[in-house]
Amino acid sequence: MKKFTRQELKNHNKRLILQTIYQSSRSSRAEVARQTGLTRTTVSDLVAELIKEHLVVEQGYGPSAGGTPPMMIEVMDSARQMIGIDLANDEFRGGLLDMRGHVSELTKLPLKNRRGEEAIQLMYDLIDRLLKKADSPILGIGIGSPGVLDARNGIVRIAVNLGWVNLPLSDRLRERYQQPVYVANDSHIAAFGEFTFGSKPPGRNLAVLKVGRGISAGIVINGRIYYGDTFGAGEIGHVVVDRGGKLCSCGKRGCLETVASTRAIVSLCQQIIQEQPELFPNSVLSNPENMETSDVLEAFEMGNAAVAEIIRNAGSYLGYALSFLIATLNIVDIRIAGSLARFGDPLLDTIRETVHECTLSTLVRDTHIELASLGQNIVLQGAGAIVLSNELKLV
Amino acid sequence: MKKFTRQELKNHNKRLILQTIYQSSRSSRAEVARQTGLTRTTVSDLVAELIKEHLVVEQGYGPSAGGTPPMMIEVMDSARQMIGIDLANDEFRGGLLDMRGHVSELTKLPLKNRRGEEAIQLMYDLIDRLLKKADSPILGIGIGSPGVLDARNGIVRIAVNLGWVNLPLSDRLRERYQQPVYVANDSHIAAFGEFTFGSKPPGRNLAVLKVGRGISAGIVINGRIYYGDTFGAGEIGHVVVDRGGKLCSCGKRGCLETVASTRAIVSLCQQIIQEQPELFPNSVLSNPENMETSDVLEAFEMGNAAVAEIIRNAGSYLGYALSFLIATLNIVDIRIAGSLARFGDPLLDTIRETVHECTLSTLVRDTHIELASLGQNIVLQGAGAIVLSNELKLV
Repeated sequence: MKKFTRQELKNHNKRLILQTIYQSSRSSRAEVARQTGLTRTTVSDLVAELIKEHLVVEQGYGPSAGGTPPMMIEVMDSARQMIGIDLANDEFRGGLLDMRGHVSELTKLPLKNRRGEEAIQLMYDLIDRLLKKADSPILGIGIGSPGVLDARNGIVRIAVNLGWVNLPLSDRLRERYQQPVYVANDSHIAAFGEFTFGSKPPGRNLAVLKVGRGISAGIVINGRIYYGDTFGAGEIGHVVVDRGGKLCSCGKRGCLETVASTRAIVSLCQQIIQEQPELFPNSVLSNPENMETSDVLEAFEMGNAAVAEIIRNAGSYLGYALSFLIATLNIVDIRIAGSLARFGDPLLDTIRETVHECTLSTLVRDTHIELASLGQNIVLQGAGAIVLSNELKLV
Repeated sequence: MKKFTRQELKNHNKRLILQTIYQSSRSSRAEVARQTGLTRTTVSDLVAELIKEHLVVEQGYGPSAGGTPPMMIEVMDSARQMIGIDLANDEFRGGLLDMRGHVSELTKLPLKNRRGEEAIQLMYDLIDRLLKKADSPILGIGIGSPGVLDARNGIVRIAVNLGWVNLPLSDRLRERYQQPVYVANDSHIAAFGEFTFGSKPPGRNLAVLKVGRGISAGIVINGRIYYGDTFGAGEIGHVVVDRGGKLCSCGKRGCLETVASTRAIVSLCQQIIQEQPELFPNSVLSNPENMETSDVLEAFEMGNAAVAEIIRNAGSYLGYALSFLIATLNIVDIRIAGSLARFGDPLLDTIRETVHECTLSTLVRDTHIELASLGQNIVLQGAGAIVLSNELKLV
């Protein structure tokens, strides 16, 4: 608990009104008063302030309830912009987002093995470009980064790929740009992006399993990112699902990532390409060591049975790991994101099958496992969402 | 978000002051003002009200900081009482609790296979007896029940043992006693009891794994019970840890409960008693079908190697299931409760070993797995804690 002052009370109710208008898309002052329980006078005074701040606009008349038709008000989605950045494996991606999460000025800068300060400079370059293109006041900068992040203090504890160790990323960016900065792990932030700007979950909880080179889950509890005690929540890529199995980069054997990450899947396909060359696209045959997930997908779509088996196997392990997550969290809305999500329904079906096999029927009955509604921009949209949530309390 | 009124603002700050005094055990008005950030006048006015309500008392003078020694204030722990009830398998247990969770008037009524209305009458009987013994105003009644509970509406969805289906337990009790009533699943409530009245966790999160006839975890996130979307959070007794293993009562094979519940352990011991009768207590030998956990414990303490192996095996499966919980939640304070906890350090050691084997080292490094600090009254103390938390916001 924290103390509450009268000024905070006023700000609180103003945010409440803005949130109410935002969530109903279009409303009238009377409707807002009804929904919030605040008096009409309070609503009118605070709406006037919001209009002055260009956050809310009057927009025509609504249907009459007998008397004068009410003036309708809405949040001006373009009134503020957020900068969302995804420090992805191969490229840094960034965009300007409006208050509904629509991305404009999508910009990608290839990483080309830059590390340390060079990688930081590339990120500055990306943000500089986006700031120049902004045409509304900027609410802040959000960053989704791989690795272990201290989201409270904006410190990258370790991002192996980028060569960052204990990097005070928020401080550096705040100093340079004089803007609010929010930093979080890319999986955590992806889940919050899906929660905020994706198709609406039935409740206030959501889990997003991100499967690409790495595997981890982002968890939203009661409308907020759940980070865990040391910012490691959802790190299920290294749970052991195949005891005594393949050696993992983490030093253990049989981790989920050794059987279900795109890296593991590509490596399995490289092993079978000799046996069934006819079912792989020509582009890979000459150069199997450069095989990528998209090549595997092409072979999969061409009907390669061995590849289908590999994907089924991966889906089954993912389902097994999810059965523990579902039993622990009892979150009924689970979504799959990341590059493996491109395998679509066949992958989903195997995941669901194993979850049904391995989870208490009363728990699984209400649980829905779907593909994430946001696509490749899920992390940068999440990065924008975290700015919006913190700065305007709209989410 | 909800609207905030001036009356709510005052109540909020009053609760904040009470909480601050409660948590610091003993304080002065000046110290409370410093800690809360409220003005001295506000603190003095609201403390005066709390003294009038007999929640706070003045208690001697503190050390002088130069001037007049300050008058010290504390929460009067016996000012209010809660009734805490544990609807355990064999007996209904209840007690009166003071505001620090100390139990008086502990009362146990054997269930003797009562079901349905008869079980309800037994619960009424228990509460009637406790109410008669109360010597302070009662804050409310808390109930920990086995089965699936809708804690929000106080409805027992299903408690197989008691023959209750969709029983509006809170409504029934509220009608009868005209008191605030809180009902939750016994594992959820045990975790909240440990969080509130047990040894203090380092943060605001805690997971308690309760292992008895059934197995489930109670999860406290940010100081509140985490129920999950359909009140099934922590139901890990039926995750599959031994694929293709023994048939479970839930219809699946190899659930955690088939290898690590006390029921499973007793059944395994019954199978080996023929081979090694000399290492079982005489009391069981004549009557192995009535073997209980306490008999297994006795054989274990007598050094029965086969029993030790059974316990090690159970511990290893519990550790395996916990590795998923730790990877999902990243809660660093994990405690073991329930009757299996009586096997103490040898059990803990196996659990920890498997957790270390199966969990990412950076996650497990900061994680501590211990026995719960509360004992057999953990559920009824949790039932009291949930009343205290809701009625006085002290937790």
